[in-house]
Amino acid sequence: MKLATLKDGTRDGTLLVVSRNLKHAAKADHLAPTLQSALDDWDYAAPLLEQLYNEINDGGAPSASSRAFSLDAKQLMAPLARAYQWLDASAYLNHVELVRKSRGAEMPPEFKRDPLMYQGASDAFIGACDDIVCGSEDWGIDLEAELVVILGDVPMGTDADKASQHIRLLALVNDVSLRNLIPAELAKGFGFLNGKPWTAFSPVAVTPDELGEAWDGKRAHLPLVSHVNGELLGKPNCGADMVFHYPRLIAHAAKTRALTAGTVLGAGTVSNRDRSTGCGCLAEKRAIETIEHDKPDTPFLKFGDRVRIEMLDAEGRSIFGAIDQRVVQLS
Amino acid sequence: MKLATLKDGTRDGTLLVVSRNLKHAAKADHLAPTLQSALDDWDYAAPLLEQLYNEINDGGAPSASSRAFSLDAKQLMAPLARAYQWLDASAYLNHVELVRKSRGAEMPPEFKRDPLMYQGASDAFIGACDDIVCGSEDWGIDLEAELVVILGDVPMGTDADKASQHIRLLALVNDVSLRNLIPAELAKGFGFLNGKPWTAFSPVAVTPDELGEAWDGKRAHLPLVSHVNGELLGKPNCGADMVFHYPRLIAHAAKTRALTAGTVLGAGTVSNRDRSTGCGCLAEKRAIETIEHDKPDTPFLKFGDRVRIEMLDAEGRSIFGAIDQRVVQLS
Repeated sequence: MKLATLKDGTRDGTLLVVSRNLKHAAKADHLAPTLQSALDDWDYAAPLLEQLYNEINDGGAPSASSRAFSLDAKQLMAPLARAYQWLDASAYLNHVELVRKSRGAEMPPEFKRDPLMYQGASDAFIGACDDIVCGSEDWGIDLEAELVVILGDVPMGTDADKASQHIRLLALVNDVSLRNLIPAELAKGFGFLNGKPWTAFSPVAVTPDELGEAWDGKRAHLPLVSHVNGELLGKPNCGADMVFHYPRLIAHAAKTRALTAGTVLGAGTVSNRDRSTGCGCLAEKRAIETIEHDKPDTPFLKFGDRVRIEMLDAEGRSIFGAIDQRVVQLS
Repeated sequence: MKLATLKDGTRDGTLLVVSRNLKHAAKADHLAPTLQSALDDWDYAAPLLEQLYNEINDGGAPSASSRAFSLDAKQLMAPLARAYQWLDASAYLNHVELVRKSRGAEMPPEFKRDPLMYQGASDAFIGACDDIVCGSEDWGIDLEAELVVILGDVPMGTDADKASQHIRLLALVNDVSLRNLIPAELAKGFGFLNGKPWTAFSPVAVTPDELGEAWDGKRAHLPLVSHVNGELLGKPNCGADMVFHYPRLIAHAAKTRALTAGTVLGAGTVSNRDRSTGCGCLAEKRAIETIEHDKPDTPFLKFGDRVRIEMLDAEGRSIFGAIDQRVVQLS
């Protein structure tokens, strides 16, 4: 099933069920007012939402249900317009290795044993077509194309081999990063704060079954396609070179505390060892350029630039809809 | 006014207005169902809640209002049982200096210019009398006594001199820390994750006017008193040696993004240069012992230990009620 959140002027929006082809949607607030409320009570809400999903898919057009309407992604907030937790890992160590190598540093060997993961800002997520608003181009504005999972309640101490059952939904994000602010922040040891402003989400979040055989319970074996100003930046496969899979990341996060329903957990910028697949962020492209000829050629994003992130299934159909954003200056 | 949240079996509880003397309370869910909903719409909700607060204070006893009842802090969740954001700084640099000195390290000079601040876990906060549940004593279980502010909406780029107006409420927290897990986490640069499990809150959150002249809009000039197993650990003054005041911390957090209503912002373990005031956490006491005679004498918390954190006004009355917790083993 595919779920989204309609902009309605409130902080949390209205829950929508979206047809598989992403063309139409029906309000589901009579079943659960928001996606958070559905996640809070998933065993109750999911079967009801699934039934509505089947109805709008069977009908195939808005007329099939009096509540259905044609969907425009610009009408959508992030599926969770705000969340109680956003954890982001760096599970594609190829990305970490490249970025470090470009500045002459080795990757510490313990990074292969113990996942890198930080607590991100979840007080506001932005919609797939919302602007990326920044104060200055000097901050080094970058995209990061990621696939995230959205969780149900996870008990403290959950083992990796039991963690997959807590995955409720998948979504794409653009984990917007301000590269020039990050080195000083990480040097302090306290993690990202100013360097990671609001994160953008794909139009819909989907249950794992929507990925069919591409989802094996641990990883999604599909390419994540990113464009900047219409030019392909990369299409690395999310299932390749993911050193820590989602259940392993969940277990890491839940080592010393339970995680509550609605936790969003990311695996970091997707990055493959096969360089022909390109990159999921500009920092990595610049790192490769620096390794190859001592300096980066690709600039970071400028005001007016556009970013597009999408995942297609084996038949070329968009699974989550596209993140399609413009960078604008804070007015 | 003083606000709290009643345990009612739901994830968010029921909003309560609590009398100034902390003895009785009235349900306020007809005005705003939860504290988050009140913060979401503060200009509407605050005057209504204030009116109920005046009623229960004037009456002076539960009988004054048919809705009022005698309050037991054990009935309470954290005022925000879950929040969309928890930012914690380390504004009392004396603490940072002592801890570093005990391991032979200097404090980098930029720490005096640029606040240390991390994004904490806010998907669940625990009540003042809830147990601290840990998997192992080997994790190095510690308390951290802090005073936090709870914010309304803060626009991106807000200056420190305009930030104080966004402070809605104050509360105490026990920022439980697992000291033996922290060094490896901070070495990775991505901040705290396993090292900071669920944070406990004082029974009530209060509007700044409840502190009277002790609140100057930037700092609270009152001691924060901590006990471990009935023995005084310290009573450092929150207004002394706070290198970055709350408005400065708000401005730092809002540099590259807006902060939304309900954001909890802490200033870190309170720590004074005057060592006779004692400490707000065991790590600092152990650091001083190490500086003075090369090794710590005070152990971290063990299962069964009790922690109490409270702030009294000039007349010795408890402002927030006491955090009073027991450390227990995960079963």
